Amino acid sequence: MSRWIQEGDNVDITNERKKGTFDTERLSAWIHGGTDVLKRRREILEFVKSVDDFKDPVPVEFLSREERILNNARKVVAMTDNTDQIDGSDFFGEGMYYQALTMGRDLHAMSLHYVMFIPTLQGQTDDEQLDEWLTKAISRAVVGTYAQTELGHGTNLSKLETTATYDPATEEFVLNSPTITAAKWWPGGLGKSSNYAVVVAQLYTKGECKGPHPFIVQLREDDTHLPLKGIRLGDIGPKLGINGNDNGFLLFDNVRIPRKHLLMRYAKVKPDGTYVAPAHSKLGYGTMVFVRSIMIKDQSTQLAAAATIATRYASVRRQGEITPGKGEVQILDYQTQQFRVFPQLARAFAFMAAATEIRNLYMIVTEQLTHGNTELLAELHVLSSGLKSVVSWDTAQGIEQCRLACGGHGYSQASGFPEIYGYAVGGCTYEGENLVMLLQVARFLMRAAEEVKKGTAKLADIGAYIGRTGAKTSRLTTHHHYTDAQLVEDLEHAARKQVFRAYDRLKKAQQHLKPEDAWNSVSVELAKASRWHVRVYLVKNFLHKVSLAPQDLKFVLVDVARLYAYDIITSSTGAFLEDGYMTSAQMNEIKEGIYECLAKIRPNAVSLVDSWDYDDKELKSVLGRRDGNVYPALLEWAQNSQLNKADVLPSHTKYLGPMMKDARSKL
Amino acid sequence: MSRWIQEGDNVDITNERKKGTFDTERLSAWIHGGTDVLKRRREILEFVKSVDDFKDPVPVEFLSREERILNNARKVVAMTDNTDQIDGSDFFGEGMYYQALTMGRDLHAMSLHYVMFIPTLQGQTDDEQLDEWLTKAISRAVVGTYAQTELGHGTNLSKLETTATYDPATEEFVLNSPTITAAKWWPGGLGKSSNYAVVVAQLYTKGECKGPHPFIVQLREDDTHLPLKGIRLGDIGPKLGINGNDNGFLLFDNVRIPRKHLLMRYAKVKPDGTYVAPAHSKLGYGTMVFVRSIMIKDQSTQLAAAATIATRYASVRRQGEITPGKGEVQILDYQTQQFRVFPQLARAFAFMAAATEIRNLYMIVTEQLTHGNTELLAELHVLSSGLKSVVSWDTAQGIEQCRLACGGHGYSQASGFPEIYGYAVGGCTYEGENLVMLLQVARFLMRAAEEVKKGTAKLADIGAYIGRTGAKTSRLTTHHHYTDAQLVEDLEHAARKQVFRAYDRLKKAQQHLKPEDAWNSVSVELAKASRWHVRVYLVKNFLHKVSLAPQDLKFVLVDVARLYAYDIITSSTGAFLEDGYMTSAQMNEIKEGIYECLAKIRPNAVSLVDSWDYDDKELKSVLGRRDGNVYPALLEWAQNSQLNKADVLPSHTKYLGPMMKDARSKL
Repeated sequence: MSRWIQEGDNVDITNERKKGTFDTERLSAWIHGGTDVLKRRREILEFVKSVDDFKDPVPVEFLSREERILNNARKVVAMTDNTDQIDGSDFFGEGMYYQALTMGRDLHAMSLHYVMFIPTLQGQTDDEQLDEWLTKAISRAVVGTYAQTELGHGTNLSKLETTATYDPATEEFVLNSPTITAAKWWPGGLGKSSNYAVVVAQLYTKGECKGPHPFIVQLREDDTHLPLKGIRLGDIGPKLGINGNDNGFLLFDNVRIPRKHLLMRYAKVKPDGTYVAPAHSKLGYGTMVFVRSIMIKDQSTQLAAAATIATRYASVRRQGEITPGKGEVQILDYQTQQFRVFPQLARAFAFMAAATEIRNLYMIVTEQLTHGNTELLAELHVLSSGLKSVVSWDTAQGIEQCRLACGGHGYSQASGFPEIYGYAVGGCTYEGENLVMLLQVARFLMRAAEEVKKGTAKLADIGAYIGRTGAKTSRLTTHHHYTDAQLVEDLEHAARKQVFRAYDRLKKAQQHLKPEDAWNSVSVELAKASRWHVRVYLVKNFLHKVSLAPQDLKFVLVDVARLYAYDIITSSTGAFLEDGYMTSAQMNEIKEGIYECLAKIRPNAVSLVDSWDYDDKELKSVLGRRDGNVYPALLEWAQNSQLNKADVLPSHTKYLGPMMKDARSKL
Repeated sequence: MSRWIQEGDNVDITNERKKGTFDTERLSAWIHGGTDVLKRRREILEFVKSVDDFKDPVPVEFLSREERILNNARKVVAMTDNTDQIDGSDFFGEGMYYQALTMGRDLHAMSLHYVMFIPTLQGQTDDEQLDEWLTKAISRAVVGTYAQTELGHGTNLSKLETTATYDPATEEFVLNSPTITAAKWWPGGLGKSSNYAVVVAQLYTKGECKGPHPFIVQLREDDTHLPLKGIRLGDIGPKLGINGNDNGFLLFDNVRIPRKHLLMRYAKVKPDGTYVAPAHSKLGYGTMVFVRSIMIKDQSTQLAAAATIATRYASVRRQGEITPGKGEVQILDYQTQQFRVFPQLARAFAFMAAATEIRNLYMIVTEQLTHGNTELLAELHVLSSGLKSVVSWDTAQGIEQCRLACGGHGYSQASGFPEIYGYAVGGCTYEGENLVMLLQVARFLMRAAEEVKKGTAKLADIGAYIGRTGAKTSRLTTHHHYTDAQLVEDLEHAARKQVFRAYDRLKKAQQHLKPEDAWNSVSVELAKASRWHVRVYLVKNFLHKVSLAPQDLKFVLVDVARLYAYDIITSSTGAFLEDGYMTSAQMNEIKEGIYECLAKIRPNAVSLVDSWDYDDKELKSVLGRRDGNVYPALLEWAQNSQLNKADVLPSHTKYLGPMMKDARSKL
């Protein structure tokens, strides 16, 4: 018996697993980076399962926000008590897995402590500050967050309103929130959990504003945890998701902090108030690329979870007859169902491949930089911004497709989908709003187009296609003879065409508009060019990775990769049919290719999603359970409802009961 | 001052209103059906505002599910106590508005009582039953729901598992749930509120199954409200939305009900157990068409609410500079923002126009039927199924676009979006799963295509284009000279092409597959044909309605209608470029047309959304407030957070506090 088949499982799901034509365990190892990694995943899983503090008393969707916060606080202390169980340096791998298993999709009181507070200390403090604050932060003597965004200010940092005015008399900075829109707003853990924060404020000294700078600020008293004088803060209320976190607001009223609480690795203020400007740029691209590569991994993990749930459920759900009298079929047999779910499965594979690759690229670039080589840096930064944008949007859409594919039960929180969607779709907005990101990518593309026109382009592999002269027509004959190289050429054609369409429109607009207005007037076309640029990369990278897979896995992965690519092409047929680059007949070939991929993936679908190696503890979905015993589990899950604690609720006793009694008396 | 401008409003939003180039009040009247209707809306609004029982103690998003249920029970009793305030026969108009104002997007304990229980009694009882039960239901002596769907069965009614076995000895039916999958699951108000239900069960008599039939069943004891013997029921737990409703489960264990509780207008069972089959079909198309036209109105109302919020917020939110040094601009000035939000605004207008039209069509068909004229019936039924599917999906997508356009604050429940989305997206699944609906539409289209091929087609106006021979190329010259007729021809070309593509593929598949398998193998293409069919109708109907508008409104509506149509075309460019029907130059014309529409709508955007006549009480969005004073209101809203009731939470006292204290002691 395979790891995935057990006694007592739903018969349909077991049959699916039995008819899989590849070794699930080998694909798991390929996905996760080797059998050693798989082994470590399972050790971590067993450890987490063995610790009582990690167990939720009931599924968290039945907890009130107060209960969720309390439950998460217990878990996060246990999680950070036991970091010796994982390789902490492998945050991308073991760290993320450990956190997913322990905290689920709720994040926790110390999320920003680890993701933003500590890295900021590491990057922005001088040596003396580093000693003091890093020690406190790592030992968990303080819990910190990162307070930058304000109620009225997100994307545009230069307009932050919080002020830190230097007072040489006392050698202190005085923090103020001059308006309501200056309220810090959104930082995770700020409302109730943190007692410290890195606060970004406009630095004023000697009557001059020196722009936004980071300060370390104590928010709450050590022992009582009460807010310090002049500090007003709290939770910002419920959100679409991640409600186990106390995202907070923060207002300052003449709060004084020592001069040395300005983080002084770069800029400094001397005791007399003299400002010393930073010698170097304050932030390298490196951190951003790293954070975004983590996001891409995280997003792909959520999409894969959604595809796992939808695929498994569709294998046990029987509804409707295809052939009358032959009994109800598994809904996975409907072509429309496959067309909804399998492209999401394919996207998840593609995004995972990209997440790995971009992390590897980050390593290479970091290495190159130590030798002063910046060849790849700009393109990599651009790519990671674009990937973040395309991946988070496609992930959100894909999760909802998977949810809708589960019919009514997908709408229940038992499915896990509402939580997965609420968590993942946040990625479209945080860490750079998606459209803003795409327009950053477009700046690079327009520069590249300009250089190509001038013949001065020197593009790394990722953008090299922009400088190529492609063929006038696609080389596709039949989809069975469509090579990877031809497919990529066709996608590059579409991307290049859109890049130059945007470029030409921009040039034209610049003739009668100011540069900024011209840019704005073609921004929809620019964003479109950016999406194409990213999609070309995603397909190329995925096809390449699959081409290197061992034969016994490649034969199944090829269909997944083709489905991913064909889905992109047939979702934008106009880009290929335009000017006769492809004929209708060629496009029909690709459509036939999709239907063939769906049919070929069908028998392996459950094994494909199994190979992602989700344990039920991580998946947290009644519909996506490994054993397929969905219906009894749904009934059991529902018993936890807050409304089922009593047979008769006050809503009856106080309102509906008297209403009915009164009416009965008058009948 | 206009109705919408008041002292103390945000300056930016006031300026937007001042620069509007049409009379908002006149457009409101046009949208809602005349000045009399507007007057009635405002009377209803004033009444609702005057009744204390309709006031929420805090915004409902801060209530636990128990509190929400209690709050809603109070409101629904008050709502039904005061039905004399509205014209109850005008459910589509006054009824829906009154309910939206009082209950919001949470539905309520008696939703199914009014939407399903009472109509089923009216439609399915014999005269004697009608007297008894309708009196009880209308007087609110009982609260009923409609229990059809089961845990394992939704779409395919014939496979429902609940049994009602006739026992002639006692002249009773015995109800049983033979399996877990037979549990009734999802009915609104079933868990805790209702004491009666119409239960659909397989009728067995004399050892034979006669298929699913409706029975009236008492679930809870009159006085104690405790479940009756043999009945197990409860709430099914939290969902993506509508958590103020106790959707329930229900299991029967030998529950006996009198023979006369079979609803006997059509089928009957005599005392000896003889089954009398129904003489007529049990359900006319009429009810379904009516329910779906209500859904289309409801969905368009939600999308319009989302567009209102996003448009107003984008007019007060300033972020980033277009021209450096000129100050931050209203985000509504970014083309990408307009491109996200305005098409949703246009869709909402188009869907409202369709909702009105389909209700009018329903009236005509009902009238025709009294004369035995069934000419329009089938097409109307098909159209309403298709509209439900396309409108609910586009609405869900559109709401999310509006939410994302509001950046971080869109993610907060203060925005109203999470509630609007959770509520509206349910429409993709209930009242006929969207893909199932589209495939029903496709049956009609394939029949029509077959008849066209045979020369026997007799299609009403809605589908007449299928039988026409269109031109080989589009007549579009420039978008300024693109007539409505030409535009519709082009859309009809795309729709017809897809209908026949699906038809040809179906015929081809039938050559080597059984009919059912052939159908399944082309179902993706079939669904696509159905979507085109519906979209042609939506555009035609909207253009037509706008063409009849008075001049002083038409000039602004024309751009909205064009944006709607152009957005459809440019989202599927391939369908028009294929086989040279349009050239790239022609497609570029349409793209330019979009940008021109965006720019022309921009100055009227706030006035356009104002004209939908949302009061803040209905909109329930801090971001979408009439007065535009978003930021202070966000801060005030957040104070309601459950987590802000105490300065220091147990999560600190129990877990995080001791952790930090311990670490401090070791420093």
